[in-house]
Amino acid sequence: MSDKKLLIVSGTHGNELNPIMAVDKFKNLTRASGNNSFEFIIGNPLACEKGLRYLDIDLNRSFDLKKSVNKELYEIRRAESIINEYGPQSLAKCQIVLDLHTTTSSMGTSIVMYGRRKKDFYLAAILQNKFGLPIYLHEKDSNQTGFLVEAWPCGLVIEVGPVAQNHYDPIIVERFLILLNFLDELLEGINNKNFSLPDEITLFVHQGSIDYPRDENGNINSLIHPERVNQDWIMIKNGDPLFLDEFNKNINYTSKEKVYPVFIGEAAYKEKKIAMSFTKKEKIKCSKEWIRDFN
Amino acid sequence: MSDKKLLIVSGTHGNELNPIMAVDKFKNLTRASGNNSFEFIIGNPLACEKGLRYLDIDLNRSFDLKKSVNKELYEIRRAESIINEYGPQSLAKCQIVLDLHTTTSSMGTSIVMYGRRKKDFYLAAILQNKFGLPIYLHEKDSNQTGFLVEAWPCGLVIEVGPVAQNHYDPIIVERFLILLNFLDELLEGINNKNFSLPDEITLFVHQGSIDYPRDENGNINSLIHPERVNQDWIMIKNGDPLFLDEFNKNINYTSKEKVYPVFIGEAAYKEKKIAMSFTKKEKIKCSKEWIRDFN
Repeated sequence: MSDKKLLIVSGTHGNELNPIMAVDKFKNLTRASGNNSFEFIIGNPLACEKGLRYLDIDLNRSFDLKKSVNKELYEIRRAESIINEYGPQSLAKCQIVLDLHTTTSSMGTSIVMYGRRKKDFYLAAILQNKFGLPIYLHEKDSNQTGFLVEAWPCGLVIEVGPVAQNHYDPIIVERFLILLNFLDELLEGINNKNFSLPDEITLFVHQGSIDYPRDENGNINSLIHPERVNQDWIMIKNGDPLFLDEFNKNINYTSKEKVYPVFIGEAAYKEKKIAMSFTKKEKIKCSKEWIRDFN
Repeated sequence: MSDKKLLIVSGTHGNELNPIMAVDKFKNLTRASGNNSFEFIIGNPLACEKGLRYLDIDLNRSFDLKKSVNKELYEIRRAESIINEYGPQSLAKCQIVLDLHTTTSSMGTSIVMYGRRKKDFYLAAILQNKFGLPIYLHEKDSNQTGFLVEAWPCGLVIEVGPVAQNHYDPIIVERFLILLNFLDELLEGINNKNFSLPDEITLFVHQGSIDYPRDENGNINSLIHPERVNQDWIMIKNGDPLFLDEFNKNINYTSKEKVYPVFIGEAAYKEKKIAMSFTKKEKIKCSKEWIRDFN
């Protein structure tokens, strides 16, 4: 097995500034810049300059090049160029990618996985075991595809929040630095198979998303209920309030299924018509196959 | 003296959603819509649709029409149209305006005054006396002019934060509703001269703003110091840390003048090269002239 190389992406969304600042700081404070095992890139530099999530379309939904119809869009071209330069078939040959994001919702630090790839499970298990981070498994959502990390054989998103878009926050930067400072040990452990896996990991598995209630003109007319604000990862059951309508009446969750909402009120998802996503908790046994799959 | 009419503006910045929602709620929950003493408008409807602060230039710096060179810009045309429709010389004849905004910085609920107009002092004194709100007096800043409220004989900005741009937050909406629910009483009191003024009011008077430290390419390379985060309105003195540079060294405040920073790390002001503004505390005696000036 040859040593793995890690691509670290910040600024995939141009209004998420703190990951970029954290990476700069990490490079200044460590010898990471001179370490050939790491590649650092800014995902969407033009959107960063403008302080926008993206210019033409969401870069982090543009990495399924087979599905990309309009090759004129800046983000489609950017996705292609990143894959060509840093993909596993490129000269730089990165096998693992970490894509650093922020949320305006109060999710703390979390890991996002896309689908059930063994290598991703392994990486997520290491990070959950080390830092106790919740894992959001995004799967079976045909409305949302083409995530950056899916273009590599192994890749995770790290989300840290809450922080406003375009707002620098040293506390958020510090949280990214805690993770970045672990990357040397992470890569060394993966290369030398030094990590022992926990017995099991806990996942929050995506079930679906709900939009805000809207009036006949399509305008949002209800708010996230105060009892739901800052309550990401907390279980709700039948009858719990979700929204407060325009007359201050509760709109409740009505289902026998107990779910755990995440991305509650996320500013970036308003345009995607997502007021929150529902997940179910699932524990899965860790498998030695995950490690073997990495060779 | 004829009865006054009040213009309430929300959405002057298109990514500040909560004031719009609060006004909608206020209209739904009260008879405000049918009250001829109030006019409600959305300042920048096109920017709201796109979730942007503005399209061409900041609407809330576009109300000095004499200075507006380029009449092609959407916001210049919008400013002119709002003045023509709701200004004191218009058919709607509003004499007072309240412009509702949000901050990503942790300033709580506050009042912003532009210059030392007697009518504004009167209105601000009533609100400070009623709700204990801090008053930020913005004056003598030639870099920033053309604020909406300056186009009316009396007008204040209400800021509520912290909340991310484009992020609905029922707690922020509730804070606006507390103020909106007072408007009937406010207008009645002004019309009938029912308000007794306090002896004095406290102002935080604008002294100047500082930018983030930047590298040779003009990129921000330092963060607001963790000791300054969420510390708006709190006094700093010589030697207190302001920023944390790229090597984690402190950059300190160096001046004998004790100041009170506000708009600390405000996301919307990054483009204006403002990392925070400094104010000095000033107490001024309330004057009966302020009331007389309203006739």
